[in-house]
Amino acid sequence: MKAKREALKDLFTAMREGKVDGDIIDLLLLINSIDGVYTTSSCSGRIGIIEEPALGAKPLSRWLVKVHREMGFGEAKEALSRAREGLIFLKSQPPIFHIVAEDVERAKKLHELGLASGFKYTTFKVISNRYLVEINATEYLTAPLGKDGKVLVSDDYLRFALGIGNSMLRRSKGRLPRLRKNFEKLREELGEDGLFYELAGEFGIKERWELP
Amino acid sequence: MKAKREALKDLFTAMREGKVDGDIIDLLLLINSIDGVYTTSSCSGRIGIIEEPALGAKPLSRWLVKVHREMGFGEAKEALSRAREGLIFLKSQPPIFHIVAEDVERAKKLHELGLASGFKYTTFKVISNRYLVEINATEYLTAPLGKDGKVLVSDDYLRFALGIGNSMLRRSKGRLPRLRKNFEKLREELGEDGLFYELAGEFGIKERWELP
Repeated sequence: MKAKREALKDLFTAMREGKVDGDIIDLLLLINSIDGVYTTSSCSGRIGIIEEPALGAKPLSRWLVKVHREMGFGEAKEALSRAREGLIFLKSQPPIFHIVAEDVERAKKLHELGLASGFKYTTFKVISNRYLVEINATEYLTAPLGKDGKVLVSDDYLRFALGIGNSMLRRSKGRLPRLRKNFEKLREELGEDGLFYELAGEFGIKERWELP
Repeated sequence: MKAKREALKDLFTAMREGKVDGDIIDLLLLINSIDGVYTTSSCSGRIGIIEEPALGAKPLSRWLVKVHREMGFGEAKEALSRAREGLIFLKSQPPIFHIVAEDVERAKKLHELGLASGFKYTTFKVISNRYLVEINATEYLTAPLGKDGKVLVSDDYLRFALGIGNSMLRRSKGRLPRLRKNFEKLREELGEDGLFYELAGEFGIKERWELP
């Protein structure tokens, strides 16, 4: 499976360059070790402050701060002091996994697995005969904080909104252990993938991380 | 197709009871007139203020105000004066359509149609051999405003956040004409459904609305 080979190379390269969220590396390795299944882009859940030059101008937006754990008040204040242009938003986003399945049966299983693990926004798309499952949850916060460098909220409000954003993140990340257990079961059902272990060997993955 | 018959009965009943968002009735009639395709729940896009007793406690949440057009500052203030318990959020949500397709080919076409009409969160699910396509966009605002009846933002901030929420709604609803045109093309391709016209006749739909 050529596409999986390329995806695994990308993942292992990104891991070695420190570009993969540390708290989901074990889960990504587990998922990719399953036969007929592999991940593309994923995120372990994050909270941050972003500047968007205009509504919907996503490619031009700029994170002032972005962390994959709870964010402190001091970090938020410091980030806001660097705001210059455009709309400023506090954003909290749940973990998200993009997983390709080799056939529709696997896609259905992945879809059910996501829902059963509490990720209620799990859906799938068919893209040129491949099935892309997105495991996603509902905890999204998008709170405007100001515009063009000017913060329009009080410190009290910022603490309050941060508290909500951090709670959402804690809540959504709290489902990762259940997701992991369900992927362990799926691996028992579908079997492991020799290609994964072959490439993990080539990239020296097991010297730095524990293989599933 | 028994399921479509039931769905059409529900839609026509809801229309007669004034429970369907007026600005998408023509579009819903058009979609349902297409062979092998029907809608379940849909929303034309809305903005409102909601009280949630606890994070994620969706079934217990309560809208203080909810409109399918832009919301005025006075409406928002009045709604906030009625806040009592739980977290208060300003929410803006784009149009969303749930469409069932009879087979995977139709589901793929619907999926592509949604994306081509600018609804970037269009996805699909398989639920017991039926294909459910969700046509959805990215303009979601979830801004906390206060807690337990206490509003934590200034009037200036409320005007600012409302402006953003209203812009998002305008932007997402602005795609409806393109979506309509694309459904007209799909209808030419897939053909019209006799069942739709039969039931529309029984329910006296054409006496109050224009049939596609």
